Amino acid sequence: MASTANALSLPVTRKIAVGSSDRLAPRLPSSSSVSFRLPVELKQVRLNVTSRATRVRICASATPVMDKAASEAGPRAPTIVDVDLGDRSYPIYIGSGLLDQPELLQRHVHGKRVLIVTNETIAPLYLDKVTHALTVGNPNVSVDHVILPDGEKYKNMDVLMKVFDKAIESRLDRRCTFVALGGGVIGDMCGYAAASFLRGVNFIQIPTTVMSQVDSSVGGKTGINHRLGKNLIGAFYQPQCVLIDTDTLNTLPDRELASGLAEVIKYGLIRDADFFEWQEKNMQALMSRDPAALAYAIKRSCENKAEVVSLDEKESGLRATLNLGHTFGHAIETGFGYGVWLHGEAVAAGIVMAVDMSYRLGWIDESIVARVQNILKQAKLPTAPPETMTVEMFKSVMAVDKKVADGLLRLILLKGHLGNCVFTGDYDRKALDETLHSFCKS
Amino acid sequence: MASTANALSLPVTRKIAVGSSDRLAPRLPSSSSVSFRLPVELKQVRLNVTSRATRVRICASATPVMDKAASEAGPRAPTIVDVDLGDRSYPIYIGSGLLDQPELLQRHVHGKRVLIVTNETIAPLYLDKVTHALTVGNPNVSVDHVILPDGEKYKNMDVLMKVFDKAIESRLDRRCTFVALGGGVIGDMCGYAAASFLRGVNFIQIPTTVMSQVDSSVGGKTGINHRLGKNLIGAFYQPQCVLIDTDTLNTLPDRELASGLAEVIKYGLIRDADFFEWQEKNMQALMSRDPAALAYAIKRSCENKAEVVSLDEKESGLRATLNLGHTFGHAIETGFGYGVWLHGEAVAAGIVMAVDMSYRLGWIDESIVARVQNILKQAKLPTAPPETMTVEMFKSVMAVDKKVADGLLRLILLKGHLGNCVFTGDYDRKALDETLHSFCKS
Ligand SMILES: NC(=O)c1ccc[n+]([C@@H]2O[C@H](COP(=O)([O-])OP(=O)(O)OC[C@H]3O[C@@H](n4cnc5c(N)ncnc54)[C@H](O)[C@@H]3O)[C@@H](O)[C@H]2O)c1
Ligand SMILES: NC(=O)c1ccc[n+]([C@@H]2O[C@H](COP(=O)([O-])OP(=O)(O)OC[C@H]3O[C@@H](n4cnc5c(N)ncnc54)[C@H](O)[C@@H]3O)[C@@H](O)[C@H]2O)c1
Ligand SMILES: [Zn+2]
Ligand SMILES: [Zn+2]
Repeated sequence: MASTANALSLPVTRKIAVGSSDRLAPRLPSSSSVSFRLPVELKQVRLNVTSRATRVRICASATPVMDKAASEAGPRAPTIVDVDLGDRSYPIYIGSGLLDQPELLQRHVHGKRVLIVTNETIAPLYLDKVTHALTVGNPNVSVDHVILPDGEKYKNMDVLMKVFDKAIESRLDRRCTFVALGGGVIGDMCGYAAASFLRGVNFIQIPTTVMSQVDSSVGGKTGINHRLGKNLIGAFYQPQCVLIDTDTLNTLPDRELASGLAEVIKYGLIRDADFFEWQEKNMQALMSRDPAALAYAIKRSCENKAEVVSLDEKESGLRATLNLGHTFGHAIETGFGYGVWLHGEAVAAGIVMAVDMSYRLGWIDESIVARVQNILKQAKLPTAPPETMTVEMFKSVMAVDKKVADGLLRLILLKGHLGNCVFTGDYDRKALDETLHSFCKS
Repeated sequence: MASTANALSLPVTRKIAVGSSDRLAPRLPSSSSVSFRLPVELKQVRLNVTSRATRVRICASATPVMDKAASEAGPRAPTIVDVDLGDRSYPIYIGSGLLDQPELLQRHVHGKRVLIVTNETIAPLYLDKVTHALTVGNPNVSVDHVILPDGEKYKNMDVLMKVFDKAIESRLDRRCTFVALGGGVIGDMCGYAAASFLRGVNFIQIPTTVMSQVDSSVGGKTGINHRLGKNLIGAFYQPQCVLIDTDTLNTLPDRELASGLAEVIKYGLIRDADFFEWQEKNMQALMSRDPAALAYAIKRSCENKAEVVSLDEKESGLRATLNLGHTFGHAIETGFGYGVWLHGEAVAAGIVMAVDMSYRLGWIDESIVARVQNILKQAKLPTAPPETMTVEMFKSVMAVDKKVADGLLRLILLKGHLGNCVFTGDYDRKALDETLHSFCKS
């Protein structure tokens, strides 16, 4: 249980209306049944987000999650992160039981026709519920759905065509709305389908994994894989809204939950020490799927991602910091075979390696190394690469990394106090070698 | 030969710096070897163009085509129509011999890698020339190409994947440039590929048919067909520049040339009487591929299309007027089998039918009917549907037209003076019936 003294304090880049510090974040006991309050008011933080096509503005703000006493009287008000993109602005709704609040979804449906895109695993769990939420009290709306096979290996053009087939056979027109119901795979595919069908139709995201709730719902990237590489074909395309019902995480396998938390931990390490500290105290609540803790972690993650994207649309520097642990992690995913480890698991091991290297370079304190190890263990995430990985496997994959410039591999490394990182090719190669050797047998 | 008195005068919606009227347009003798001047200065016309995604501005301006005396001293300066889309503005270069001016293309190539997308017919004619233009004096640039099969039936996802395959196998990155070399099929496919590859790379259009030079290069629509319908999958995506070398039209089959002229004639009828009058006087020059006449007709067409799109991005009314003759024409294409008649041929017959109906409604003078017949004949375009078309064939296709609203088919019809049209469902059904019966056996 957190002491009030070092509970959440927001980073200096944010301007907030500061209440008494103990009201700024949920402080959770190990049991998640006790009620608490979230921040009563955060001033709007206006950010500049620029996609390739247009300069846009993200405005992240938060409204309070009601306390339990209030929720018993009626539906719980969602936490809202507003993504301000000019005339394409949209809200991210975050909270427990949001799929039982049909008006949230219905206000963002344009036209009378909806196509839900989901997969074989998620359909039996949530398709009826979402269909109901879209249609209850709304007899004019008709809902079709298309159920795709489950898995990253189906994130391809052949399967995408099934979405177009369904939309066209259903005679949907420009005024229809596509709804993505599922994890990042479904969100990316449905988003790209919505971007391309009739050159663009309305689109709503209902992400159902931690990974999709904290990462793929912000930034507008959609797309599919090519047999020669991941996410090579796609579009920048923004939804009408993102609806995150934290209750959907109750059916998520433990490994998938933990995998998503690796990205949450990443945000703390690269830029938000206070968030990291909050996580250190609340990891058990997150692991036990406490709705308020999840809602807070998701909100804070969305805000962090929105802010980074806003400051560096072209990924020339800052945006690359979102890839902490991903270069080592990518080598693990490739070397070990995609799908054996989940993405977040590979990222977790990658973060440990990046942190180890940062420490060898003398850029961070030993205490940070220990805290990273500790929080990942709490999240039941790996803290080392698979035993079969060799130094050579790492080197061969890292040699063709996108971040190689003029033969120099640039890495995201921690430097200085907790919450600070650098993206640099200016480091002693010996430290990289030592890190690889210390984590690999040969 | 035109009398100077009724040579070009620009429509009232344009503000221009008026020179002496005889210098405003090329007046062409039947032989195209005599030199002349184009307008010396047109003030910029600022237009609002809004795609679904962003509000943008088109600014159409024209710079003079140099006269022949000047061209003998050096390369001919292109006519330029500037499409002003904020930070995605681009020029359309129009003129003879532009592919021999490598600097025009090279200034718009981003990065060091280029992928030319073309087809089996066009590659033997222009691939070397374009490759040379891209690389001469530019040793840092490397050019790959992909040659697609020729034909509307290959405008599909399977063939599009060949473009992605090539781009990925060539290890192109975000800084590469795709070049579309061909007609509307290649332009639409390459544009959509550029929009989707790595979520968007640079894109240059080199349209080589009249149809693509006067229509598909303006408005940003790109895409492919689905087996159940045309152009159902795509994106709004703008090029870096459009380079129209009118010399490429020298190899274009006569039928393809004429087919494109149907759209040119359409612009005159729906909104630009002066342009129509210019065409009446210069159709022979266009048919004999006089470069200056072609350049002028292409420029004026691009300006007209840009202006219409700018005034009605959502195709709620005005933009639909670009479909004059297309509802009847579409019935011909569908009923007669796609590809038997070219698109512009079907549109020509469709224009005649729309004009006939407008006359039956008492909305236009008999003289307009005669002038339309006459100009289409000059362009060697059909002035009636194929003999095998029946009233029923027309009716069944027109019943499912996108422009049917509440059971009423809205049509683009001429009304009033030359150059005026309406988009309306408010007409006497008898006139439509009479028109169909007068053009069909049964
Ligand atoms: N667009 C972006 O910016 C972005 C960012 C990060 C990741 N991604 C993409 O996201 C994908 C990974 O997303 P993911 O981790 O969500 O994987 P995923 O979509 O494959 O979901 C993981 C598994 O959980 C199942 N599942 C989802 N929700 C469930 C629920 N509520 N209950 C039970 N099972 C559930 C899925 O069916 C799947 O089997 C990758 O394709 C990656 O490229 C995109
Ligand atoms: N994007 C838009 O706004 C828009 C507008 C109008 C039409 N279109 C699309 O454009 C397509 C029709 O375009 P098109 O009429 O140019 O057809 P096309 O691209 O099929 O070209 C017609 C024929 O001419 C050949 N050809 C092209 N240039 C040549 C040259 N210089 N010399 C010799 N042969 C040449 C082609 O290989 C082809 O056989 C359709 O798919 C239509 O949907 C798009
Ligand atoms: Zn990741
Ligand atoms: Zn047309």
